[in-house]
Amino acid sequence: MTVTVAVDAMGGDLGPAAIVAGARDAAAEGVRVLLCGIPDRIGAELGDGVDGIEIVPAADVISSSEEPVAAVRAKPDSSMVTACRLVRDGSASAVVSAGSTGAMLAASLLHIGRVRGIARPGIGAPLPARGGMCLLIDAGANADARAESLLQFGVMGSLFMHDVMGVDSPRVGLLSIGEEPSKGNAVTVEAHGMLACAPDIDFAGNCEGRDVLTGRFQVVVAEGFAGNVLLKALEGTASILLADLRTAARSSLRATIGGYLLRPALRTMRERTDPDTYGGAYLLGLRGVVVIAHGNASRRAIANAIRIGARGAKADLVGRLTERLSAGRPTSDLQAPAAINTVPQVAAPEIGDQ
Amino acid sequence: MTVTVAVDAMGGDLGPAAIVAGARDAAAEGVRVLLCGIPDRIGAELGDGVDGIEIVPAADVISSSEEPVAAVRAKPDSSMVTACRLVRDGSASAVVSAGSTGAMLAASLLHIGRVRGIARPGIGAPLPARGGMCLLIDAGANADARAESLLQFGVMGSLFMHDVMGVDSPRVGLLSIGEEPSKGNAVTVEAHGMLACAPDIDFAGNCEGRDVLTGRFQVVVAEGFAGNVLLKALEGTASILLADLRTAARSSLRATIGGYLLRPALRTMRERTDPDTYGGAYLLGLRGVVVIAHGNASRRAIANAIRIGARGAKADLVGRLTERLSAGRPTSDLQAPAAINTVPQVAAPEIGDQ
Repeated sequence: MTVTVAVDAMGGDLGPAAIVAGARDAAAEGVRVLLCGIPDRIGAELGDGVDGIEIVPAADVISSSEEPVAAVRAKPDSSMVTACRLVRDGSASAVVSAGSTGAMLAASLLHIGRVRGIARPGIGAPLPARGGMCLLIDAGANADARAESLLQFGVMGSLFMHDVMGVDSPRVGLLSIGEEPSKGNAVTVEAHGMLACAPDIDFAGNCEGRDVLTGRFQVVVAEGFAGNVLLKALEGTASILLADLRTAARSSLRATIGGYLLRPALRTMRERTDPDTYGGAYLLGLRGVVVIAHGNASRRAIANAIRIGARGAKADLVGRLTERLSAGRPTSDLQAPAAINTVPQVAAPEIGDQ
Repeated sequence: MTVTVAVDAMGGDLGPAAIVAGARDAAAEGVRVLLCGIPDRIGAELGDGVDGIEIVPAADVISSSEEPVAAVRAKPDSSMVTACRLVRDGSASAVVSAGSTGAMLAASLLHIGRVRGIARPGIGAPLPARGGMCLLIDAGANADARAESLLQFGVMGSLFMHDVMGVDSPRVGLLSIGEEPSKGNAVTVEAHGMLACAPDIDFAGNCEGRDVLTGRFQVVVAEGFAGNVLLKALEGTASILLADLRTAARSSLRATIGGYLLRPALRTMRERTDPDTYGGAYLLGLRGVVVIAHGNASRRAIANAIRIGARGAKADLVGRLTERLSAGRPTSDLQAPAAINTVPQVAAPEIGDQ
């Protein structure tokens, strides 16, 4: 089965070069790629026709400095919106963009739409936990989530890790401030009760901030505010510690020699935690697999983002999600009463290095 | 002026040895210390009479495994409750305990009481930011805070950093998920507006998870749920990265030699971020300075905790706070309508290494 992935060729800070190169790599493995954007710009990178890659013309580009919802509405002919429309039309089953997270959230809500029964999509961010990736969901799409959404994040995250990332029985944790079910804010405590009763997920209880990277959980469910704070705290701490390490390794001749000798061993550590491996963040709960690559995504990151999109489509993630949400209980149980087809009020924060 | 600090001599995981030793160090500098606990146990560490140290007998001990509020109510003659009562009676103006954070929060709420006008006390946790300490407040006392409380955390944190820690004009940030005032959950967005209008504090806008350790802020105001997640994420990431570094430094002969040579330079980095420097976390908003040392606090940590308690008393932190909260606007503006004299429903999470 050939899977088609729509790719926003103009998104990101670096222009189409890395995106086109990554698309080539994915196409060489049999994924059909629709590159959306300004044909001349794409053509300049792509050269002569490449098997498995087609250009879909789009005249506009949404920049990361624009207000997301307004930009998506004002630029229906942008590369990002065009790529999302290809999913809605059934011409593609997944979409990849390295553009603004907020704009991509708005574009996919407006132009791809939610899976029936999903109140709010969540941003799934891969974290480099010990022993492999851990999916943090929601990493910031919903600043004031309801408990029902947290339950859905657990179901979606678990399905994603199983079906797309190939984890056998993903352990699901709930981000909170103590191990006991009673600890946390009101929405988290309520969600704990729901997750504990949810069939078909391996709920392993609360997960504290310090547990996230230990490898005890493969999915960490979070309300988006705390999830986003957590994600950025992890990035910030890592970058400050590594910078301090570099400073320490320049502080004396002895330290400089030590740093030089240690460097190859640290390279392994850096590679293990390289975000490019995971392609970016995933928007889950939409009628298509949506992957948001970093703004400065490399060729490797883009190729992996396309691969993950294709894998999600092959595994029929959307179909399985729809089935799971309608099985065994009325859909309305899982549906928030209001705002089903509106874009969240909170402009989504940027994720990752963008 | 001699300041008297009540010290829970039995709190903490290590027994009275380090606590008594730390009390000795602080007493040698002129602080009067009231050591609360089992006289024989304290006497065994203290030896003959030490100038500036008195023993206040207390028969019970609250362990960190007990449910905080129940334990505080059931053990009025515990070392922790006795120490808090000395502050209420005016026999001491600050209290230090290395016992459970939750129990100490409950004990100080019940036996010391809030400053008039303060809806909820906040846990102020020192973070090792670049260029010096940053106070995170609230680090977890209130899992569902109101915007009014966040404003008060900003005022209290700013006063504490100025009057007690000697920071000239502390820059106050608000933990959120984007730089713009409109980003965040409802309570944070509301608090942003209040902080921006607050007189006498240097409000510098939103602070994202990645900014906390950069040194841009000396106070980070947070709703307690996200604040606690953040605190534990910082601790967890640092400990995992340092463990990975140790593993890397054992991965080959070359790396081992490199690690050996680099070690002295890293020691400086470790010392700079040593939590013992700050004594522990601070409970702000009570009618006394309350310092919660780590459960495994060293002699140095205890001495510093007592020093910080004494400094807070000398600076009349409680008086200044009362004055600030009553100046210029009716107290009721700053007072939450309900639950003024109750202990928070959420059992407070443990802070730090306890």
